[in-house]
Amino acid sequence: MFLKNAWYCAGWDNDVGLGAGDLVVRRIAGRSILLYRKGNGEVVAMEDRCPHRSAPLSLGRKEGDDIRCMYHGMRFAPDGQCMEIPGMPRIPQGICVPTMPVVERNNWIWVWMGDPARADPDLICYAIGPDEPGWRLKTNHIRIETGYRQEIANLADLSHVSWVHGLTFGGSEDWSFIKPQHSMQPRGIETRYCVRNIPGPNFAKHLFPPDARFDIQVHVRLSVPCNFILSFAVHEAGDATSGPTNGKLLLDTFSSQAVTPRDEGSVDYYFSWGTSEDTYFPGIVDLMFNANAQAFLEDKRILEGQRERMLEYPDAPQVDIIHDAGPGRMLWVLDKLIEEEAREAAGVSEAA
Amino acid sequence: MFLKNAWYCAGWDNDVGLGAGDLVVRRIAGRSILLYRKGNGEVVAMEDRCPHRSAPLSLGRKEGDDIRCMYHGMRFAPDGQCMEIPGMPRIPQGICVPTMPVVERNNWIWVWMGDPARADPDLICYAIGPDEPGWRLKTNHIRIETGYRQEIANLADLSHVSWVHGLTFGGSEDWSFIKPQHSMQPRGIETRYCVRNIPGPNFAKHLFPPDARFDIQVHVRLSVPCNFILSFAVHEAGDATSGPTNGKLLLDTFSSQAVTPRDEGSVDYYFSWGTSEDTYFPGIVDLMFNANAQAFLEDKRILEGQRERMLEYPDAPQVDIIHDAGPGRMLWVLDKLIEEEAREAAGVSEAA
Amino acid sequence: MFLKNAWYCAGWDNDVGLGAGDLVVRRIAGRSILLYRKGNGEVVAMEDRCPHRSAPLSLGRKEGDDIRCMYHGMRFAPDGQCMEIPGMPRIPQGICVPTMPVVERNNWIWVWMGDPARADPDLICYAIGPDEPGWRLKTNHIRIETGYRQEIANLADLSHVSWVHGLTFGGSEDWSFIKPQHSMQPRGIETRYCVRNIPGPNFAKHLFPPDARFDIQVHVRLSVPCNFILSFAVHEAGDATSGPTNGKLLLDTFSSQAVTPRDEGSVDYYFSWGTSEDTYFPGIVDLMFNANAQAFLEDKRILEGQRERMLEYPDAPQVDIIHDAGPGRMLWVLDKLIEEEAREAAGVSEAA
Repeated sequence: MFLKNAWYCAGWDNDVGLGAGDLVVRRIAGRSILLYRKGNGEVVAMEDRCPHRSAPLSLGRKEGDDIRCMYHGMRFAPDGQCMEIPGMPRIPQGICVPTMPVVERNNWIWVWMGDPARADPDLICYAIGPDEPGWRLKTNHIRIETGYRQEIANLADLSHVSWVHGLTFGGSEDWSFIKPQHSMQPRGIETRYCVRNIPGPNFAKHLFPPDARFDIQVHVRLSVPCNFILSFAVHEAGDATSGPTNGKLLLDTFSSQAVTPRDEGSVDYYFSWGTSEDTYFPGIVDLMFNANAQAFLEDKRILEGQRERMLEYPDAPQVDIIHDAGPGRMLWVLDKLIEEEAREAAGVSEAA
Repeated sequence: MFLKNAWYCAGWDNDVGLGAGDLVVRRIAGRSILLYRKGNGEVVAMEDRCPHRSAPLSLGRKEGDDIRCMYHGMRFAPDGQCMEIPGMPRIPQGICVPTMPVVERNNWIWVWMGDPARADPDLICYAIGPDEPGWRLKTNHIRIETGYRQEIANLADLSHVSWVHGLTFGGSEDWSFIKPQHSMQPRGIETRYCVRNIPGPNFAKHLFPPDARFDIQVHVRLSVPCNFILSFAVHEAGDATSGPTNGKLLLDTFSSQAVTPRDEGSVDYYFSWGTSEDTYFPGIVDLMFNANAQAFLEDKRILEGQRERMLEYPDAPQVDIIHDAGPGRMLWVLDKLIEEEAREAAGVSEAA
Repeated sequence: MFLKNAWYCAGWDNDVGLGAGDLVVRRIAGRSILLYRKGNGEVVAMEDRCPHRSAPLSLGRKEGDDIRCMYHGMRFAPDGQCMEIPGMPRIPQGICVPTMPVVERNNWIWVWMGDPARADPDLICYAIGPDEPGWRLKTNHIRIETGYRQEIANLADLSHVSWVHGLTFGGSEDWSFIKPQHSMQPRGIETRYCVRNIPGPNFAKHLFPPDARFDIQVHVRLSVPCNFILSFAVHEAGDATSGPTNGKLLLDTFSSQAVTPRDEGSVDYYFSWGTSEDTYFPGIVDLMFNANAQAFLEDKRILEGQRERMLEYPDAPQVDIIHDAGPGRMLWVLDKLIEEEAREAAGVSEAA
């Protein structure tokens, strides 16, 4: 079950080039979407299916701003309208391909999968892209065979850093003793907390004296469908015991992560990580990049194992623990929005 | 859904040899069929399933004209009758394997999948095999993961030559402006037309002056399940504007193509192409053979992409265009025959 | 459909080591089971699924005798009780992982998949393990994609030795003329017979003069789910025509074979074969080992072919022959026990 009226990330802007062969297919929320750029550089998103006999338009040919299906030669404009049917002097009414509003922002391509009239760019989540001045960020992409609800549960609760990421981001059990307050937002949750007086994360421990202690100031903005915007600031351990850390800022890092459901059991995961220019020093972003690549494979392993067992035991009960507070809130917001859509759709059909 | 009372091509005659190990399995119209040759060379077709515990007879052993299941040693004659059950002095009545009438013609092996009493060899489609005097033909085989109804739609309308085969058979958009008359036949359709004053097909363009123009005289006989018999004669462009071309014959080519449904989503495609002896010149058949191999991969790519989208969007409406006239007529004939079979079967069970 | 109240073989004892990484997953009767050893060497069997969010415990970490889920750090004792939830001072009641009684015997690990209160070690089948004094046995493992009912039918009737194993164990058709008496047991069948005056099995024929003849004295104990315990004694051909052979014992061999259903269509097969010390001579066990490995691939080929056809023809009738007596009796015992369980379960729920 997917939310329709939402912006879904379709990848990094340079995934879709201007070349003749740059016809990119993405599976988004159960639909196959073709992405290409017009001559002026704007991205077009449309269903990757010719309305005639379902041939993929991504096997077609760019002709100016149009796309020609290479099965029987039907040509479609960027707004989906059929412009030409070779051999037919007139085009029957109503032949078109569904298209989707597209916005590029923070080097991501966003596609609106619901009612185009509601495609408000203000609903796109805040992020910092790799081109943002003042930041040094590297990007990556991973595919995980899991449901996006499981990804939400993974991201809305960072207690798993202690266990899943013990060899990379983790290095102490302190992450699993945090009980963060999650503030409800119209389309997600927001969470701020400080993990205090902990050893450095494993991937960077060797850069500091063995007894060095740190405060990690965390700020998470999680929004539908599953966008995870993370400020992760490393400070010298301070002496504040509540509220923000008062230790000296060592490394100001930021990670923008967009998880796009492909189908019920598969997601595309686009992410960046890096530091501010102010706290950058040579080598640090590559070190973070490598740790990140390894850590996301740690997630992939546990999430795909989880999915395997969920499919084997579809009716098994699940017990809840304290750390499910964040996942529970975020899934509640998601389900509320999905339910509202269903109710509206039912109302519309009743009225019709 | 398959037509039962029809001849299905099971491959080229030399696919089934006389060796001890020559036990060939074909999947035909949803059934697994074993093919082998008796000592006198005749081909036997029977279900590839022992009636005892379903072991494949194709894992068995030829013993003279019989086949022995190598699980428990039961031996079957070419007519399917059980001849021996090791350890049992008497064979219980009625133990047999279903067999199918077989005819070899035009170097193809044809199997009748319906009521044996109706297996009329006159219903086998006209073709020209590679051994036919007067012709120089080469043969090939391809498997395509598509439904045979989609293959019918592909073959009953050659407008796609302009688009799918632009780099091989095509080379102009003229193919998609032809509106051929399809004449209905009891078990298929027949179509004749001329594509006039076009440049040469891409694969052979370099053999002629750049401004050379041709008339292509086409004659298609398409019959159930999906046999496509094509005369494709290349002439110098003439000055007739209707009826057959009056240009000089340059190359008289013929292609016999049998598409056999394996299951709902897979076909085996056996085909030949070549020229008459009269118009043959050195190298031309190899050039055609290579172009054909490449062109059928072009079809495979679009048909398998189409199938992927059809499975993703099972309920999506499809719009019709002018070029669907041929596919529509051919599918109408197929569906009528399938419906007649269903009605007869219902009548038989009612009467019983 | 699986019998719950039965011992299922989970492999050889040395499959599960004492190392930190020795977390073994087996699929048994439709469930994923984690096996590991405690510090004292005892084997623990539990469902490989964290009750929180279904992460595989086999991706976890051994901590003493406990296992920690490495998703959110929940720790479980060998009896399945949850001992720790990081971040929660108290553990809610009733959080546990289902565990299964385990017995090691004859170098096999046995897991009881039903009601623990009924886990009677006396129900474990008799066998001779590779460590048994007086025997020289080698062990192996194979996976076959077949149902365990088909394995039962394979093992409860050795007439197939003539056909499936003609190149290995076989060498004459005599096996398919035996009509053994199968004696019904509470949890299986037992069968004794002698195959008289036959040539040696193909894999060992070269060790004897060409005209040598043998009596094979067979004793099979087959028990649920599908354990096949075989004494196979090779004698010089004697002159007794009924009852046990009176020929001189040449080779006293024994094979213990446990077939564990993974799912409806897949089994794990653990087996040993070898000779008594008394009849051992150099090279003979390796010769037997190699013949056995080849013979079980012969079974795999026919059983997987059979499964393919059974899936293609799910409703096809099957005829019975004389050799189905053993399979029929063994499946009757199995089905009776399964039915009893179902009746008891229904009674329990009615009473509740």
